[in-house]
Amino acid sequence: MKPYVEMTIEELSSELEALRIEYRKYQGLNLNLNMSRGKPCREQLDLSMGLMDALNSEADLTCEDGTDCRNYGVLDGIQECKELIGDMMENRPDNIIIYGNSSLNVMFDTVSRAMTNGILGHTPWCRLDKVKFLCPSPGYDRHFAITEYFGIEMIPVPMSPSGPDMDMVEELVSSDESIKGMWCVPKYSNPQGYSYSDETVRRLARLNPAAPDFRIFWDNAYGIHHLYDMDRDTVMEILAACKRAGHPDMVYKFASTSKITFPGSGISALAASPNNLEDIRKQLTVQTIGHDKVNQLRHVRFFGDIHGMVKHMQKHADILRPKFEAVEEILEKNLAGLEIGTWTKPRGGYFISFETLPGCAKAVVAAAKKAGVIMTGAGATWPYGKDPQDTNIRIAPSYPPLEDLKTAAALFALCVKLVSAKKILDEKTAAAKACGKEG
Amino acid sequence: MKPYVEMTIEELSSELEALRIEYRKYQGLNLNLNMSRGKPCREQLDLSMGLMDALNSEADLTCEDGTDCRNYGVLDGIQECKELIGDMMENRPDNIIIYGNSSLNVMFDTVSRAMTNGILGHTPWCRLDKVKFLCPSPGYDRHFAITEYFGIEMIPVPMSPSGPDMDMVEELVSSDESIKGMWCVPKYSNPQGYSYSDETVRRLARLNPAAPDFRIFWDNAYGIHHLYDMDRDTVMEILAACKRAGHPDMVYKFASTSKITFPGSGISALAASPNNLEDIRKQLTVQTIGHDKVNQLRHVRFFGDIHGMVKHMQKHADILRPKFEAVEEILEKNLAGLEIGTWTKPRGGYFISFETLPGCAKAVVAAAKKAGVIMTGAGATWPYGKDPQDTNIRIAPSYPPLEDLKTAAALFALCVKLVSAKKILDEKTAAAKACGKEG
Repeated sequence: MKPYVEMTIEELSSELEALRIEYRKYQGLNLNLNMSRGKPCREQLDLSMGLMDALNSEADLTCEDGTDCRNYGVLDGIQECKELIGDMMENRPDNIIIYGNSSLNVMFDTVSRAMTNGILGHTPWCRLDKVKFLCPSPGYDRHFAITEYFGIEMIPVPMSPSGPDMDMVEELVSSDESIKGMWCVPKYSNPQGYSYSDETVRRLARLNPAAPDFRIFWDNAYGIHHLYDMDRDTVMEILAACKRAGHPDMVYKFASTSKITFPGSGISALAASPNNLEDIRKQLTVQTIGHDKVNQLRHVRFFGDIHGMVKHMQKHADILRPKFEAVEEILEKNLAGLEIGTWTKPRGGYFISFETLPGCAKAVVAAAKKAGVIMTGAGATWPYGKDPQDTNIRIAPSYPPLEDLKTAAALFALCVKLVSAKKILDEKTAAAKACGKEG
Repeated sequence: MKPYVEMTIEELSSELEALRIEYRKYQGLNLNLNMSRGKPCREQLDLSMGLMDALNSEADLTCEDGTDCRNYGVLDGIQECKELIGDMMENRPDNIIIYGNSSLNVMFDTVSRAMTNGILGHTPWCRLDKVKFLCPSPGYDRHFAITEYFGIEMIPVPMSPSGPDMDMVEELVSSDESIKGMWCVPKYSNPQGYSYSDETVRRLARLNPAAPDFRIFWDNAYGIHHLYDMDRDTVMEILAACKRAGHPDMVYKFASTSKITFPGSGISALAASPNNLEDIRKQLTVQTIGHDKVNQLRHVRFFGDIHGMVKHMQKHADILRPKFEAVEEILEKNLAGLEIGTWTKPRGGYFISFETLPGCAKAVVAAAKKAGVIMTGAGATWPYGKDPQDTNIRIAPSYPPLEDLKTAAALFALCVKLVSAKKILDEKTAAAKACGKEG
């Protein structure tokens, strides 16, 4: 089929009519499908049921160093868990603090601490007139929600397949001391599935921020979440890169097992320089007596070591890969050549990012919803929920069963066609009228 | 034996000599005992090993309402857990948010949220010149650490067996709008084991604070932590009392299972009015995707219902009661009649509070430490670590095995005698010299 823009008004009208008939058929199916969030599916959760047997009432809940995991104590995580998560994050156990069940919570707390008590002796952000964050966009809505909650001004930075626009980042960070932070999902980014290039990481590590307490918030949410066995992305380790560049304190790195074992019942962690960790521990010792050591031990006993975790992730990949491929195949089959949308083909992570024609994303999501398929709200991937071009839609293929997913993806493609055809037809009709009047 | 103050200089000198000989004997034992923290002992932890079998790989981790506890979702706790904890806290499930493993963390977050974003639309505390908290003292050092961390000025309020000095509380709270909060451990208080009387609770509920965003931080840490089966304290339920008094929003109530199952691997909760909960959920939805539902379900399956929890607490009591009684007996045997100290005899909780002669607490704790027995640091029970009279020592009988505890308590009593005898002797000697000079 030829591109919609090249069709005549008559061709488009008849196409639109055919699309509407097809859309009504879908409406008749009473679908109730959800492609909105990066939720693991039931089969993925089943992979971790062994976690429930890793400790039982006969188990010795004592650490290698003699710590009884059942009692109070150990502020920053048991040693064997630091080692496992250290291998997962590519950081030394000494650089790691193990937290509770949610890395989002760790990020929230990290911003909150900077607000109330400042970073390494610098003025608390709540005492400043203005605090800004750079937000590579499209990005993760829950990051943006945190900075918005604290009244931090968010500046969108364009994303490319190699990462954020580093010319813009360097320019802004070096010239504006109210810029205190930057959100990054460096690997299999949310929502595009892009991974930062080595050059991007190097340039980030070599930033010379106007603010001495500028921090990169490095959310390595998908560090080992590959879809393919060999064809996978690597991202340069940021703590080491910052240390080499003479800026060891410039980054906080976050990760969790949320999409490895059970979301909400896993383990999260922060990696940072010794200076930063000391600063954080001063708060942590007031905030809590320690996180859930029994759950830390449970994870260590379940995986054994990083090799156990890697093998476990391959099973996740075997479930997720067909889903990503199905969506991509359906988009390709239905949309190729029409020039009404582009989409990413990530090798890991949880999302496919779709770009509609300008001004179409909201309408596409609304049309899908009306036919029973929930997508992430259009705009959600941009700070303040404002996608300036109204083009970005995040597709989350993980949760629905494969057959449902295929239906949902086909409906989604149909909605893209419907909304795009309507838009182009309207434009052509308006243009024709204008010509008529002129004539 | 007669009171030390009634002894002659000669009698006291010979008493002191005898005490020093006994002290040196203890030093020869190379003791290494700890009565410093309210940590459950190994036998108590063993009571909850069944928790590790409550869920296994064959278990259905689905809630009664169909929620899969293994996945994301459910911001404020699964319903069956709200019901169990609701029965524990004497609050309706609707008034409860279930949190992670630490109620201390919930309290920290609650203060932090008030600092950065304010309470129910009021000015964030971080924007005010001065924020103050009332601190019934002696009290819990970790409460005081939270307010100190946020730069909140702490005002000590004297404690009596019926609770804080309510005349002072009413006077201060109604006249000073910079007073934004008050720490309370209403039942088996830390460290005295006092329980607030009905009159105290009523007067608290009827406070008319100058600050519209004044909140009582009601840490009901020992709500069901009785030592005796029948002879137990009750405290009027504060949410209901505040509601009756027309101040439903004036209190945040906290509790946890830390001293019921495993400290650090339990469940914490906050109970509050609908207005407060709505305010809190607005933050919570930004801060986290939810707390550990699998652990919530694990606790529900383990206890079944509140009756299961009550029976479980009786087993704790059977372990703790002999320890409290042993300490009390040793103190009685060694110190009765000497008029050098008083101590509380709580019917629940985790602590016995000891009052030395003025100016002796630090010296007693130091002497115990020199002979191998660690007590809570003297002063820790007061804001900023400053016990104005240097008299209060917190005794935590739970952790050491009974025989060790008896040794530790005997040494402690000896240290009290040693320090007191020395002090009184010094005073008498100085007085005699002064008389001699005068004569």
